Amino acid sequence: MSPARTAFRFIGILVSIVAVFLVVPLVVALIENEVAARNAFLITIAAAAVIGGVFSIVFRSRVSDSVRPRDGFLLVASAWVIVAAVGAVPFVLSGTIPRYVDAFFESMSGFTTTGASILSEIESLPRSILMWRSLTHWLGGMGIIVLTVAVFPVFGRGGLQLLRAEVPGPSLDKITPKLAETAKIFWLIYVGMTVAQTALLMVGGMDLFDSLTHTFGTLATGGFSPRNASVGYYNSAFIDIVITVFMIMAGTNFVLYHRALTGRVRAIGRNTEFKVYLAVFGVAAVAIALSLFTSGTYQTVGESLRYAGFQSASILTTTGYATADFDLWPAFARAVLFLLMFVGGCAGSTGGGIKVVRHVTLIKQAIAEMRVFLHPRSVSHIRLNDNVVRKEVVFTKLGFIVLYLGMVMLTFLVVSTAGLDLTSAFTTALVTVGNIGPGFGAIGPTMNYGSFPDYVKWFLCFSMMTGRLEVYTVLILFHPRFWRS
Amino acid sequence: MSPARTAFRFIGILVSIVAVFLVVPLVVALIENEVAARNAFLITIAAAAVIGGVFSIVFRSRVSDSVRPRDGFLLVASAWVIVAAVGAVPFVLSGTIPRYVDAFFESMSGFTTTGASILSEIESLPRSILMWRSLTHWLGGMGIIVLTVAVFPVFGRGGLQLLRAEVPGPSLDKITPKLAETAKIFWLIYVGMTVAQTALLMVGGMDLFDSLTHTFGTLATGGFSPRNASVGYYNSAFIDIVITVFMIMAGTNFVLYHRALTGRVRAIGRNTEFKVYLAVFGVAAVAIALSLFTSGTYQTVGESLRYAGFQSASILTTTGYATADFDLWPAFARAVLFLLMFVGGCAGSTGGGIKVVRHVTLIKQAIAEMRVFLHPRSVSHIRLNDNVVRKEVVFTKLGFIVLYLGMVMLTFLVVSTAGLDLTSAFTTALVTVGNIGPGFGAIGPTMNYGSFPDYVKWFLCFSMMTGRLEVYTVLILFHPRFWRS
Repeated sequence: MSPARTAFRFIGILVSIVAVFLVVPLVVALIENEVAARNAFLITIAAAAVIGGVFSIVFRSRVSDSVRPRDGFLLVASAWVIVAAVGAVPFVLSGTIPRYVDAFFESMSGFTTTGASILSEIESLPRSILMWRSLTHWLGGMGIIVLTVAVFPVFGRGGLQLLRAEVPGPSLDKITPKLAETAKIFWLIYVGMTVAQTALLMVGGMDLFDSLTHTFGTLATGGFSPRNASVGYYNSAFIDIVITVFMIMAGTNFVLYHRALTGRVRAIGRNTEFKVYLAVFGVAAVAIALSLFTSGTYQTVGESLRYAGFQSASILTTTGYATADFDLWPAFARAVLFLLMFVGGCAGSTGGGIKVVRHVTLIKQAIAEMRVFLHPRSVSHIRLNDNVVRKEVVFTKLGFIVLYLGMVMLTFLVVSTAGLDLTSAFTTALVTVGNIGPGFGAIGPTMNYGSFPDYVKWFLCFSMMTGRLEVYTVLILFHPRFWRS
Repeated sequence: MSPARTAFRFIGILVSIVAVFLVVPLVVALIENEVAARNAFLITIAAAAVIGGVFSIVFRSRVSDSVRPRDGFLLVASAWVIVAAVGAVPFVLSGTIPRYVDAFFESMSGFTTTGASILSEIESLPRSILMWRSLTHWLGGMGIIVLTVAVFPVFGRGGLQLLRAEVPGPSLDKITPKLAETAKIFWLIYVGMTVAQTALLMVGGMDLFDSLTHTFGTLATGGFSPRNASVGYYNSAFIDIVITVFMIMAGTNFVLYHRALTGRVRAIGRNTEFKVYLAVFGVAAVAIALSLFTSGTYQTVGESLRYAGFQSASILTTTGYATADFDLWPAFARAVLFLLMFVGGCAGSTGGGIKVVRHVTLIKQAIAEMRVFLHPRSVSHIRLNDNVVRKEVVFTKLGFIVLYLGMVMLTFLVVSTAGLDLTSAFTTALVTVGNIGPGFGAIGPTMNYGSFPDYVKWFLCFSMMTGRLEVYTVLILFHPRFWRS
């Protein structure tokens, strides 16, 4: 079977899956009697179903077991562009976001779980559109390829190549030898967490719609909220705490949940990345709370901790929700948040960014190098979770961070051509490549991305996708050897 | 011979050398009839000579050939603190900088060739004080340990350990097997360049005093100027070009000069780091010039290039001179300068920062990792100057960059406790650890470091020294194993 046939069939299946999920906002549109939105969803579903159906039937045949790495990267990158392109259509057709560049930005921001929005006024939009906006998070968070592999077990070992390209960091093949089963387990855990959080938010006083949309934004570490003031709208300590806890859970490696569910609870306590992740969250939250309390931003220690904890979790896990305009916080609190933008969630989580395990590995290696300076004949092996880390693994992580920071710098340069000050331009780069959403200055939590020139919006879509696919998958397309057959 | 005896003798020699160089500003004070400054220098010289003489005579004996790495790091770090402490005394005694913390900051900034100043008014100071300020650059630029080893060949192979601690990056032992000879050759090249630049600046219309002080600041990549408006004061295209060229020369690996002088000119063209260094300079200068010209900041292409070239060279080489208030330049020009703050000069130069060769190595490694993703069975060897780079070398550079950026982040956090905005605080960290000097915002080219609280000034002294000694030498003192015997 030719790579081209594989590609068309694969894309056909993907587009069909998007069509199926578009039924959710369609139902909302019918209930709420939103005519323009209803028609927009109907047309998009019809078109997607036809294209998807034709592609997946015409090119019907089992996907080859031996998808080459090259084809895997190209296919996954194309898949993400196509899904975002299809997801943007209802925004335009419903008249909610008239210009396609803006709609594509919003859709890409949704699927990549960035949560950066070009919209300034959110609450007055049709609820079906808001539902779709949040649903793109939920789909993109666990990964559309993971979903495809879980639902259509037609992909043999070739599917692994695709999964690797979508999430090159953590190893999905670690928990069971059967790929489709693994993907299913992850999605089941994800659905279970969705039910749990939705229920808790309803207990906290949200209606079903707000609970669902916020849960999607939380578990995908996305950040879109149907409220202009984000989670701050509810002004409820209970809701803040629920979302804080679930953000931290979403930023945790899902393999640990699988282990816990299969009785290996102690494995969690031995996981270095998880411990460092919690420690970073704790230290950052306490440091920010101290800054908020001593500066008088909040009157009580409890309130300071609540807002500091929420915002630390939100930035660390790359979610991007806000319960306060943190751009107005004291300099030290802002500095800590800025540094958190470099960290990211755990490997194998829905969180973006550099990810904790990469930091841990490189910092351990740096400390080991000091040891070599002290004792020139010693070797610089490092251990993680009691295992020696192979040099090749360190190099892969090193390469990731170099490419990631390179992408941040490039984005920063492009954004700065639009005339933004250093802080705004640099954090724009950090929060798009890191899939966070809000930053400081021109893109602070009360601002939006609507006023950027079109070429910057297109470039930021590229940055968000590069970040979501953990840089290698996208940047490899620019490697001089890639297009040589 | 005990390590303690070695240390005392070594420090005695160092302090004596400082005393000898203090005679230069003393002569200026005598000529200019600056009474307070003259007395300050006389007292400092007398005290330093007595202490230095007593130490180096009492603890007289050949320094052991086997200085342990540990002792080497401790000795060099202490040496730099002591030299900066002694260098600060004339500022206080002359009444020019009444508070010792400020004087120590100015002295440390001088010796580390940072060029960050706590002074707001410079031109009205005694000329002998200004001479001393610039002379600290010149001494620190090539390295006080290098000088000590060159002048006092009493250090056997143990001296190599000290040199390594002062400049862990480039290998001083590369050009000749005899250490003292190598150190002498470097100092001779340095002196030769000093004579050449001083002569050229006098041709450009500066008097001897201004020529000398600016030459010291240029060749050491320091940045102190005896003028409030820095090099911008002279408003001369010729002077700008001379200083631009010599800044670039000072940021070049001195080993290349040695090769050129011994007839191996072609080796220069084959040096990857040097080529990338020139390319970075060229691209940055042209990009900034375009931004300056299209924004109408300067009216002609020539003028735009002149100012862009000067400022690019100044930031890239970590000098810190200014011919314009670049903090008022367009966003894109500022963004390019900001990125240059991460680059630094070449290894084996007087420039600070991360240094080009480390960037080249890690970027090459990252690109090689992409190749492994494409062809999983390939290996990720990289080459530099036609030689395969050993994995251990990559790890050392990786460790450096991790520690360096860690130091930048820590400095950023400390500075932000003083309430500075993100841009000011972050560039303060970048330009102190990188030994650059001016940055953006509160420490822009027309500002100074005088208004920082004392604890921040002390910490910045630590940051400047850590940067100058290429992080390992200082941070290794905090490694848990260091103090275990």
